[in-house]
Amino acid sequence: MLMQTYEARLDGLRKELARRGLDGFVVPISDEHMSEYVGSYAQRLKWLTGFGGSAGSAVVLKDHAAMFTDGRYTVQVREQVDGKLYDYEDVPATSPAQWIAAQAPNGARIGYDAWLHGIDWSETAQALFAKKGIELVPVDGNPIDAIWDDRPQASLAPATPHDEALAGRSSADKRAEVADWLKREGYDAAVISALDSVAWLLNMRGTDVDSTPVALSYVVARADGTADLFIAPEKVTPELSQHLGNAVTVRPRDEFVTALAGLAGKSVAVDPKHAVAGIFHTLEAGGAKVVREGDPTVLPKAIKNAAEQQGHRDAQARDGAAVVRFLRWLSIEAPKGGIDELAAAAKLRAFREECGILRDVSFDTISAAAGHAALPHYKVDEDSNIPIPPSSIYLVDSGGQYADGTTDITRTVWVGPGKPSAEMVERNTRVLKGHIQLAMQYFPDGTSGGALDALARMHLWQGGVDYGHGTGHGVGSYLSVHEGPQRISKPGGAFPGSETPLRAGMILSNEPGYYKAGEYGIRIENLVLVVPAPIESEGDYLGFETLTFVPLDRTLVEPSMLSDQETGWWNRYHEQVRAILAPQLEGADLAWLEDQCAPL
Amino acid sequence: MLMQTYEARLDGLRKELARRGLDGFVVPISDEHMSEYVGSYAQRLKWLTGFGGSAGSAVVLKDHAAMFTDGRYTVQVREQVDGKLYDYEDVPATSPAQWIAAQAPNGARIGYDAWLHGIDWSETAQALFAKKGIELVPVDGNPIDAIWDDRPQASLAPATPHDEALAGRSSADKRAEVADWLKREGYDAAVISALDSVAWLLNMRGTDVDSTPVALSYVVARADGTADLFIAPEKVTPELSQHLGNAVTVRPRDEFVTALAGLAGKSVAVDPKHAVAGIFHTLEAGGAKVVREGDPTVLPKAIKNAAEQQGHRDAQARDGAAVVRFLRWLSIEAPKGGIDELAAAAKLRAFREECGILRDVSFDTISAAAGHAALPHYKVDEDSNIPIPPSSIYLVDSGGQYADGTTDITRTVWVGPGKPSAEMVERNTRVLKGHIQLAMQYFPDGTSGGALDALARMHLWQGGVDYGHGTGHGVGSYLSVHEGPQRISKPGGAFPGSETPLRAGMILSNEPGYYKAGEYGIRIENLVLVVPAPIESEGDYLGFETLTFVPLDRTLVEPSMLSDQETGWWNRYHEQVRAILAPQLEGADLAWLEDQCAPL
Repeated sequence: MLMQTYEARLDGLRKELARRGLDGFVVPISDEHMSEYVGSYAQRLKWLTGFGGSAGSAVVLKDHAAMFTDGRYTVQVREQVDGKLYDYEDVPATSPAQWIAAQAPNGARIGYDAWLHGIDWSETAQALFAKKGIELVPVDGNPIDAIWDDRPQASLAPATPHDEALAGRSSADKRAEVADWLKREGYDAAVISALDSVAWLLNMRGTDVDSTPVALSYVVARADGTADLFIAPEKVTPELSQHLGNAVTVRPRDEFVTALAGLAGKSVAVDPKHAVAGIFHTLEAGGAKVVREGDPTVLPKAIKNAAEQQGHRDAQARDGAAVVRFLRWLSIEAPKGGIDELAAAAKLRAFREECGILRDVSFDTISAAAGHAALPHYKVDEDSNIPIPPSSIYLVDSGGQYADGTTDITRTVWVGPGKPSAEMVERNTRVLKGHIQLAMQYFPDGTSGGALDALARMHLWQGGVDYGHGTGHGVGSYLSVHEGPQRISKPGGAFPGSETPLRAGMILSNEPGYYKAGEYGIRIENLVLVVPAPIESEGDYLGFETLTFVPLDRTLVEPSMLSDQETGWWNRYHEQVRAILAPQLEGADLAWLEDQCAPL
Repeated sequence: MLMQTYEARLDGLRKELARRGLDGFVVPISDEHMSEYVGSYAQRLKWLTGFGGSAGSAVVLKDHAAMFTDGRYTVQVREQVDGKLYDYEDVPATSPAQWIAAQAPNGARIGYDAWLHGIDWSETAQALFAKKGIELVPVDGNPIDAIWDDRPQASLAPATPHDEALAGRSSADKRAEVADWLKREGYDAAVISALDSVAWLLNMRGTDVDSTPVALSYVVARADGTADLFIAPEKVTPELSQHLGNAVTVRPRDEFVTALAGLAGKSVAVDPKHAVAGIFHTLEAGGAKVVREGDPTVLPKAIKNAAEQQGHRDAQARDGAAVVRFLRWLSIEAPKGGIDELAAAAKLRAFREECGILRDVSFDTISAAAGHAALPHYKVDEDSNIPIPPSSIYLVDSGGQYADGTTDITRTVWVGPGKPSAEMVERNTRVLKGHIQLAMQYFPDGTSGGALDALARMHLWQGGVDYGHGTGHGVGSYLSVHEGPQRISKPGGAFPGSETPLRAGMILSNEPGYYKAGEYGIRIENLVLVVPAPIESEGDYLGFETLTFVPLDRTLVEPSMLSDQETGWWNRYHEQVRAILAPQLEGADLAWLEDQCAPL
């Protein structure tokens, strides 16, 4: 059988749309759970257009079509998507909805899959289209699925219990907390559709999505502490059934829609940020009273308990030793030339796997040499892969999924021989100063990440430079490497979370950077835990405990630019690195560690 | 004639409400322009209840009544308002609308004066009341005015032209800018009701409100560059008429309502943040198409042109010399005892007046001794006045209105004999470090005040302390000492403005502080101008130019807590202070200045 061309796929989709009486269709990257990473069965945009980035969408109209991507993918989209088939459109300068409103004729019927879009998107698009006489039509079954012959099945891999000793709380206890909230608010039930929320609530994990250990499923949690879990029966092992117990009724995943339709008269809480439009539509059509409320698991999931905190420290110590062994290997091999980005990423994964209990990487490793390091979200693949040039900066952003914790670390290193330029050292030192400033800062309880963001930037700003991404994201406990509700970023930015007060027990990244287009990139990332500040204070104060322990590259630091306090931080940090990692290392690795951890 | 008691006034209001078929009435502090400071004719809350604070409101129901104030006035309201007549309620724990919704019976008709409340307030209250079966009724004429026999007339003082050399632009030019905006947006007219907006747009000033040089009036500006000015005819001098020219039609102020009602079919922009509900209601009832848009004068008013910037520098230099003479006088007289807060404020005003061109103070001087300094908004009066104790901290926050600029400065000084406590010095030094941190910071164009706020707090936070007010407010050019849209404060706070990007030409205060209840208070305030940063940068960067030049009290500084950069800032700042003020001083004043400006 011949490989179908993208032109044939686009033609096929247009015929399918015509058959359904539609004048256009919107194709997002998403699944029924609004996941950040989606299974192969849901990668409809990639199948249709060839686009392999992590954010983007397409619109197909009768006579033309467009791809929508942001600045990260300006180059990539032109390489992967045929410009004869699709116009290239930039987000946020435009958006699929705005583009349709401008392009589609009066009277057009534009289809969308309500199980792949948020309710806010569908309502906003509908209102915008109404002004232009365009109708937004939810489809009955995704038209791409109708023409995608060899579409992979959704994963049927078993879901497994998550050890209660690592979770720190039983699922019954978590469900009781949700039930208390439902009773207090006067609601009958909550629909939990975010995969990591389901996983947290039921102390359940899975392997259905790359990098995030979740199982495709939905939960309806009730005010009496019971819950229905909707999941493919093939995924339910006897062990899982026993773990879930009598209070959780396991039902086939394809009964979820029917179950929602059966909640007539019930007051049901659904989170518009985490549940697709289809859930709202089905509940409303069935006669339920839908209340738009935040997912009640989000905050308790973000505030790690003592067991989760300790698990995270254990995972970090293990992970740090693997990264050190990788960095020593790199420091010897890379200056010789011949190591490429993919090989380096594979080697790092191999070091992580040597512990025997790595479950997965927590995201695709950003293994970025030279100019590639200037792309904060660079993803190496066979096409982009280049050798790491000797005498250059190499940036590696990576993490592991372990049963006791999720890690995420970026180190930027100078690959010899020779020395980095004065500019590289100056910029790296400013990034370092911002990292330290945030790491050492105490702040009143109630302070948001938006209020703190400038602390990581202030030293870069004094040098007239900045970085175009957030400073810190939340991190899960053996769950999503990007987890809300907290976030450290410029207040009022595009992503939600900068307004959320930080709370003791939250884990975040601390990752300022600097990027010089086409030349090099710098990022220093450790994870930090929000803790009560160890000072006398008027009212409650919080601070950060650094969780990640791997040496920083002193070749890229100008010591005279550091204050005594900053130098003190550096030396204390490296003392801790040595104390935590030395027992796990030996021989040349240990010697290298000792060398890296000597006082500055 | 006997002085009427507050009890009699409250009874009188209840009778008036009964006569009108109302079950209650809301009494805010406001005027028809939503001004921060209001003329005596509009001080209905004070007349009714005796409350003299600057923020608060009352609700009068048939059988009980309540006063609503925030934490600043917890003590004062109990001293001034009779607890037998009014319950004391705390804002934001409750609000007048919430309290009414909880207290008033189903079917109650609650009156409010739509010319004293914003449209957002009236719509929110109306929706809240509707749920409880309570009706919010706009009154036809304020019922307090009906019973307030000796109510002062609104000021009829002349309005005067503002020198175009100081304004830097003609009114015609400003009106053309507004007209261009109206044409671009497709609107016919804009209602300008904020008094400082009217004053800026027409290059007109007045003396109708304490501390802010504005004239009671409204403007309707049209897309052809013409405008109607609604103002009491008694206020219009031949000089003003000539200044306004043919394109501005002067009409009696009491024709404003009729004129709004006559805009049927016109598209009219009105700012819900600056225009009262009555304007919206009248326009809508008259058949105009009301568009809720920001007042188009707010941003150009905030961005000072070169003439305004230079005028401000001139005013500051003059003002600084007066403050220095005051501080020297204080340093000699206060340690002897016998100077009280009122006397100090009067002396400071006298020094300012000696230049011969002081128009007014820019707000009531905060002259605060010892524990009073711990109240950030303390207002000294005959009842609160205390002698400044020797061996204590004295805080003075004051400003002048000059034709070329509006000033606002806070100095905190140690009044001898003896030495301040180590804690006072430590806290003052942290406040100073925050002030310097903000003053020296560069930042990318587009950065908001909310993003920068933490820079002024970070050193206090490291000591476990903070201050409960914003860091910086906008300042007008011979206009309001509190001017929007910009603000430096915690992101997401109660006041708007922290989300507004700072723009070159904006003037703000830089005023971190520390307050120890009952003991002492510290605040260091200079005004700063947003300027292009004098550095090489990737993209446009901004910074601050300090505008206020008066020595800081070194008695309260611990030099070992300052970094080299901070000490450098102190010494450079005091060199500038000396250079700017020395030519204006002589004898003992000059010697004192030289002494204060010696390197740290």
